[in-house]
Amino acid sequence: MGRITGTTRLLAVLGDPIEQVQAPALVNPLLDRLGRDAVLVPVHVRPDDLAEVVGGLRRIRNLDGLLVTVPHKIEICRYADELAPAAAFTGSANALRREPNGRWRADNFDGVGFVRGLRAAGHEPRGRRFALVGAGGAGAALAAALLENGAAHLSVCDTDAGRLDALLRRLDERWPGLATGSAVPRIEDADIAVNATPLGLRPDDPLPFDPAALRPDGVVADIIMKPPEPRLLRAAAALGLAVHRGIHMLDHQLECYADYFGLGR
Amino acid sequence: MGRITGTTRLLAVLGDPIEQVQAPALVNPLLDRLGRDAVLVPVHVRPDDLAEVVGGLRRIRNLDGLLVTVPHKIEICRYADELAPAAAFTGSANALRREPNGRWRADNFDGVGFVRGLRAAGHEPRGRRFALVGAGGAGAALAAALLENGAAHLSVCDTDAGRLDALLRRLDERWPGLATGSAVPRIEDADIAVNATPLGLRPDDPLPFDPAALRPDGVVADIIMKPPEPRLLRAAAALGLAVHRGIHMLDHQLECYADYFGLGR
Repeated sequence: MGRITGTTRLLAVLGDPIEQVQAPALVNPLLDRLGRDAVLVPVHVRPDDLAEVVGGLRRIRNLDGLLVTVPHKIEICRYADELAPAAAFTGSANALRREPNGRWRADNFDGVGFVRGLRAAGHEPRGRRFALVGAGGAGAALAAALLENGAAHLSVCDTDAGRLDALLRRLDERWPGLATGSAVPRIEDADIAVNATPLGLRPDDPLPFDPAALRPDGVVADIIMKPPEPRLLRAAAALGLAVHRGIHMLDHQLECYADYFGLGR
Repeated sequence: MGRITGTTRLLAVLGDPIEQVQAPALVNPLLDRLGRDAVLVPVHVRPDDLAEVVGGLRRIRNLDGLLVTVPHKIEICRYADELAPAAAFTGSANALRREPNGRWRADNFDGVGFVRGLRAAGHEPRGRRFALVGAGGAGAALAAALLENGAAHLSVCDTDAGRLDALLRRLDERWPGLATGSAVPRIEDADIAVNATPLGLRPDDPLPFDPAALRPDGVVADIIMKPPEPRLLRAAAALGLAVHRGIHMLDHQLECYADYFGLGR
């Protein structure tokens, strides 16, 4: 870390829990390499406190932007003055910045980060069939980005029928007939099965789906970053399946964030 | 700076302007040496935004305390749940922390830091006569600490008659007859003349008082830390007077903060 002084600009990442967030450990060395007098700090905020914390943070004059993670990605949109297309489509955001006119704009880089990460790992999404578990903020972002990037079919699963239906309706408006939904995971027909739920953050969480149901040449992806190998990926690897870690999504979001916050490359 | 991760605890220093604050550059190396997974960040907050910013910061679960500087030291007391004696006496605070019961407690280390700094520089306050310019938060803290530590007399000056009278009444209740007040600086009879106003932060500020009026063996002290040699101290030095910089006060507050925030030594 560079030296923090009174001139240092602030970025903050909001989450609950916060201990597992990888962004500070990844972004701060980037800021250092770029010679920026700025620092990204972790901010632990409970859902009930989100309005007051964001209201306060927005008024900090040397704070230029926010990253947002579980469970605040949907609710945070209420506190933005405007939504970029990816945030508007998904109803969720993971980055906010103060515009030159003082307004706060929210965007969502989960989807583009995930797709870039898949491609970098050799898993081109175009023409592939996906099973996506979790229709929350991250799930919606991934769904839209996968279809935007040519996925042949998307099966979305969520235990919350209202949330699932709402996402499917929005997907169907833009990509008619390409997405279907279910209350239980349907991964048998998928090339790539993706966990976009928080299941796996805690060691005793149940598996979001059973990787044994996937075809032998399938890929199991998880967006959870801590632990780096959640139970799902360990189980998948034990079955001989290819696995794709959550860190790839964040790695490839870094360049999105750098652009968004004007950090250059 | 140590590595900032999701587990890093936060401290913040609040001010307006913020660029001049020295606390981050001093406290962060201390945290590093102590091996603490914590960071102190500068927070620029305008007076009109103080309530909302502090309301938000208090609800950040990994934020353990606040330092407070110009111009918020008085107003901040409204947002504490309890006041330590030095904060209650002066009506101003420069440190708040979350107590184990969740309440926020405010304290004031300006006075004790200033007195410790004077002593370390060989200027024992006991039995000396002081002229103090500025009856705001810092001025009140210095006044109480100087009298508490045996100053023989204190002449306090402030252009705000109401603020000056309120301070003199509180001082007189506790140290009858030792403090007098005036609307213009009276430094002719002082051994040590102290600037406790913000005058000098900006290059074109007028001098808070004319050091030429001080006796030749007098000491001119300033609490302003940036620039390190404000116009007042340059003028005093040019007259051959001993000068005492603002940084001494902060240097000696560091041990107070370390104790207050449970950082050990």
